[in-house]
Amino acid sequence: MTRTVLAADFGGTHLRAALVSEGGEVLLRREHHTPTEATRESIVADIVHLLANVAQVAEPYPEAACVATAGLIDAAQGKVILAPNIPGFRNLVLTTPISEQLGIPAYIENDASAAALGEFRFGAGRGTRHLLHATIGTGIGGGIVIDGKLYRGAQGLAGEIGHIILDPSGPRCNCGSRGCLEALVSGVAFAERARRLVESGKSPALRELAGDREPTGVDLFNAAKAGDQLCEAEIRNGGHILGLGLGSLVNVLNPDRVTISGGLLAMGEMFLGPMREAMYSLAYGPAAGTLVRLSTLGDDAGLLGAAAVALEYLEAR
Amino acid sequence: MTRTVLAADFGGTHLRAALVSEGGEVLLRREHHTPTEATRESIVADIVHLLANVAQVAEPYPEAACVATAGLIDAAQGKVILAPNIPGFRNLVLTTPISEQLGIPAYIENDASAAALGEFRFGAGRGTRHLLHATIGTGIGGGIVIDGKLYRGAQGLAGEIGHIILDPSGPRCNCGSRGCLEALVSGVAFAERARRLVESGKSPALRELAGDREPTGVDLFNAAKAGDQLCEAEIRNGGHILGLGLGSLVNVLNPDRVTISGGLLAMGEMFLGPMREAMYSLAYGPAAGTLVRLSTLGDDAGLLGAAAVALEYLEAR
Repeated sequence: MTRTVLAADFGGTHLRAALVSEGGEVLLRREHHTPTEATRESIVADIVHLLANVAQVAEPYPEAACVATAGLIDAAQGKVILAPNIPGFRNLVLTTPISEQLGIPAYIENDASAAALGEFRFGAGRGTRHLLHATIGTGIGGGIVIDGKLYRGAQGLAGEIGHIILDPSGPRCNCGSRGCLEALVSGVAFAERARRLVESGKSPALRELAGDREPTGVDLFNAAKAGDQLCEAEIRNGGHILGLGLGSLVNVLNPDRVTISGGLLAMGEMFLGPMREAMYSLAYGPAAGTLVRLSTLGDDAGLLGAAAVALEYLEAR
Repeated sequence: MTRTVLAADFGGTHLRAALVSEGGEVLLRREHHTPTEATRESIVADIVHLLANVAQVAEPYPEAACVATAGLIDAAQGKVILAPNIPGFRNLVLTTPISEQLGIPAYIENDASAAALGEFRFGAGRGTRHLLHATIGTGIGGGIVIDGKLYRGAQGLAGEIGHIILDPSGPRCNCGSRGCLEALVSGVAFAERARRLVESGKSPALRELAGDREPTGVDLFNAAKAGDQLCEAEIRNGGHILGLGLGSLVNVLNPDRVTISGGLLAMGEMFLGPMREAMYSLAYGPAAGTLVRLSTLGDDAGLLGAAAVALEYLEAR
């Protein structure tokens, strides 16, 4: 009989839980929206409840559970240090209530790190030894697999690739620094690029698309697709900067492969073309041949990543 | 009786060879200048000869040999792929002639990677688990130790931290890209900053120091020490940019410690102060507490690094 684990992916919009087989098959799934009004206690109760809900119909009973969530995670302590997008979700031990309630070992991992192990084990990173995974969405996250194992670093913070500096005089990042990759290329950064374009009065098309709203990154992309050259130039420049960031990381880490996921990939070749070009031209020597592959796990990257983390812990025991 | 290994450090100016104990003691040492006129064959013969010279008086006979050298190294094949500063030193298998001549296993490693393992084992990185080492000299090199072992990456190129982009519209780097860390902060980059200052006519002090020569990074530092504020601003800016680079790497790697070595450290607090400040302000969450320590191995970092690499191979057998 195949081994199974419980996996949860807890983010700003959704809470997903699933029973996942050793081979990465989702055998059972529950999900609901993240409540907008929640206390620390209600969030924990919610996660435990949804996992218990899946566990009680699982046959055989799962051997471990893991929750993937955004933010700074102390995996060794099973603790969320800080989750910027989830109010109240800080300095919170999450693993103890889960393991007490369900009677199995419980773990927690940063969602981008979990996604990296998910891609490595079940997705676009299969067959590699050293993998860099980047999630390019509202923000930028990253995860690193080294020698086939998730690499967490000294305090579990490894892979914060959104906060490498690409332009010291660039726009201010949420982290307080200037010109972080995330402040230059991300959903948030493209919305800011769109806002500046509208403000400059140079893109009537974008202004019309946005109407009374603040323009978004999606507006920017739609205006570019409709032929607005300034909007297209912003997206191409974003792709170029992302490629310089990934190329820098390839020079540091020399991974076998780079996998990427996230909402911004929907911008397609207008974004990905300049990204690849910049990355390949920067990467050093034989590393210039490092493959970039799009995620094959899509929305389930966090969930299957959490499962991969739980399985890795079980195998290491 | 303690285990010993042969170590060599081959660079643009010196060839050093030594017998080193398991504990990092240099028991015997030979060195000479790198010949300016040399063929592939004469370089190999030179290295083999110097190592043999040390080995023949070693008692007991060393168990392995390792050569650290600048450039792109294929450690698995024992091959120098490309050494930019040493003409003719490319696509050259170095380990076979050494092991045939000396009758012991021979290895080769990039000098900055070797230095990282040297600091980890014998120097300022002792007691860590994950270490980033940066050498800040004529160029910038780096090495990464993960879980107590030298991390080489997919093709042995990991740690090329001189080629992360800090300013996409910055000065052209030798590698062809723009605004690499090495093009902004290194001996070469400071010489270029000095050249531009003299050209601008804004620093008579620097022009006078350089006389008929092209100004160097040392001239820039001397002018700054003598009170030239523009020269001091260049050095402080260089330290700041280096700090942003190291802080970026801390966010990606989350090492226990960062060790630094190289000629530019002689610039002292004028350079290191802004470096620390930028690095600590960028590093994320608990990683902001990552210690930076100056190398304790100095000029012997490459040599002791080569010894550490040889010892690591012996222990893994």
